[in-house]
Amino acid sequence: MVTSVGIVGLGLIGGSLARRLVDHDVEVIAWNHTDRPYTDARKDGIDCVPTLEALADAKPEVLFLCNPLKAMPEMLARLVPVLDREATTLSDVGSVKAMVRSQVVEAGLADCYVGAHPMAGTEFSGFAASDPAIYKGALWAVSVDDKTDYQRFLKVATLITGVVGNRIIVLDDQTHDRAAAMISHAPHVVSTAFINELSESPDRNIAAALAAGSWRDMTRVALTDPDRTRAMIEEDADNVEALLRDLASRLTAFADDLDAHDDAALTRFFQAGQPFRDYKIRQRENESHEPRQFNQRADDYAIESQSAASQKSERIVIPIPKSAWQRTFLDSARRGEHVIRFIQPWQVEVETRSAI
Amino acid sequence: MVTSVGIVGLGLIGGSLARRLVDHDVEVIAWNHTDRPYTDARKDGIDCVPTLEALADAKPEVLFLCNPLKAMPEMLARLVPVLDREATTLSDVGSVKAMVRSQVVEAGLADCYVGAHPMAGTEFSGFAASDPAIYKGALWAVSVDDKTDYQRFLKVATLITGVVGNRIIVLDDQTHDRAAAMISHAPHVVSTAFINELSESPDRNIAAALAAGSWRDMTRVALTDPDRTRAMIEEDADNVEALLRDLASRLTAFADDLDAHDDAALTRFFQAGQPFRDYKIRQRENESHEPRQFNQRADDYAIESQSAASQKSERIVIPIPKSAWQRTFLDSARRGEHVIRFIQPWQVEVETRSAI
Repeated sequence: MVTSVGIVGLGLIGGSLARRLVDHDVEVIAWNHTDRPYTDARKDGIDCVPTLEALADAKPEVLFLCNPLKAMPEMLARLVPVLDREATTLSDVGSVKAMVRSQVVEAGLADCYVGAHPMAGTEFSGFAASDPAIYKGALWAVSVDDKTDYQRFLKVATLITGVVGNRIIVLDDQTHDRAAAMISHAPHVVSTAFINELSESPDRNIAAALAAGSWRDMTRVALTDPDRTRAMIEEDADNVEALLRDLASRLTAFADDLDAHDDAALTRFFQAGQPFRDYKIRQRENESHEPRQFNQRADDYAIESQSAASQKSERIVIPIPKSAWQRTFLDSARRGEHVIRFIQPWQVEVETRSAI
Repeated sequence: MVTSVGIVGLGLIGGSLARRLVDHDVEVIAWNHTDRPYTDARKDGIDCVPTLEALADAKPEVLFLCNPLKAMPEMLARLVPVLDREATTLSDVGSVKAMVRSQVVEAGLADCYVGAHPMAGTEFSGFAASDPAIYKGALWAVSVDDKTDYQRFLKVATLITGVVGNRIIVLDDQTHDRAAAMISHAPHVVSTAFINELSESPDRNIAAALAAGSWRDMTRVALTDPDRTRAMIEEDADNVEALLRDLASRLTAFADDLDAHDDAALTRFFQAGQPFRDYKIRQRENESHEPRQFNQRADDYAIESQSAASQKSERIVIPIPKSAWQRTFLDSARRGEHVIRFIQPWQVEVETRSAI
């Protein structure tokens, strides 16, 4: 079990993770680009060091880069000469995975790297807003490639399942980033296209006067900082581009079908998403019927999951083959399973979810 | 001032309107396609009659068709032989206006018709869910065309502003329906396209596992009854079609710009909606700072508006010319003004809103 973790960047995500790890008796060494949060962080039991180099020197077993993505190349460049790659496995919490890996590869640190992305956060930022509870019941995507060393992977994965007490799904970068384009990046573009449409219309005040819930929901994310949104989209540009072209085709085809009064095609359009509607209905039913479960034994892969309890699920054990283990994990994730714990290095317990 | 109103259809919208009118001392005669709500409605002071013909015979000054849109042709056909067009002005509360007017024209009732669409409602339906308070602070779109008789218009408009105590904007059908396509119908299609995209992806369970707030907001309306959504879209097909083609062009252009790393074009995309973002910011600031105002004098154009008080606004008086009065009202709506009351038949007080 991992007993020391390094954190670069004591913002909302890094600060909350550091505090959660301290709560679970892990030695946490942190460095932040300014020492502003240090007084508070030290009170929370985080060992704050003056330089990134000092953090590397401390040889934490796992080092999480929790800095903004735009600072990633600089952080990696500074780590190269000082990181003990035998002692330390490098990870990160970035919201895109392919771009980070390419930067890691470019820096020459690929052999000690395992990517990660926790589904956790709030609308706030900074250490002052940090809270170990944002990781409660969280799911992490752990991203690997064909060259990922299984022992490195195991270190990061068991730290998350065993110590942090969270679930994981194990993906390749492309699958992660394609999914992120679908569930977040493309919606941001579409939402922005809608407010552009309205803003450029001579009837914008009339439309705004008539707007209700569907408009509010459709455009909420377009109201967030457009510079941040743009950066996020450019970090996942290829996947966003492909998805937008696909969506544009769907909208054009629907317009054609509407024009042609093509009853069968319109019926197909409104039925195609039924599996997702059914999934949401099952999810809600389970949320309303099942009691919440808590398992506080954080030392044995505890799962303090709200959402885990909220879906019909059972737990099964699956063996991991020594070759092409990445594929076994990916297939499991595609079936809608979440890894709860490692029973042995080559055997995991997964929770089967109500799949779509 | 209007003292008697007929209501066809005691559902959520019709039932709530009937009850609000009774509360404001208007004689309300209602007919519903089944007499199920009659016991409760009579307790609320609504005069329920056994047939549509009996309702027409009562010669209400204004008759609101609050039936489902799909029943509109039948209702109109049944009214033709019995409606006293001198005594009664026909109106409706349908969510699309061009289709209803074409049905009214086809039935030969155009000369006594003024369209209306209150921005009011809840997620529930039926008389049991009705509540006069859903009209509190509501805005109505009143739809007119070149042939609309001003006295008929005045009857419906002053009923809404003077008796119901709501605000109005006065539009032509096309402007109303184009705005509805933008703020509701097209968002429903886009939302559905997203759940189709996910449902058809081999990575659907992975995407669903990573989904958070932006996905939830983007797809909420796709979870509502797809048959109802489809009907709504087909009722406004031409406008929805045009808007979807425009949106598809915007998404394709954005994909091209992303591919070409066209910095200037990407900047334009993220700035184009800034007028709407600024408008929402002003709206929120005013909501948090200004106290709510209530004016309970329902007999003199009372405006029990929550949202009226929530925006920086002033009240001005505008004269209405006797020719092309429709244009004067439309221009006012385009400037973001809401009509509060008629000072004289040809003079209205409007509230200027924080315009986009």
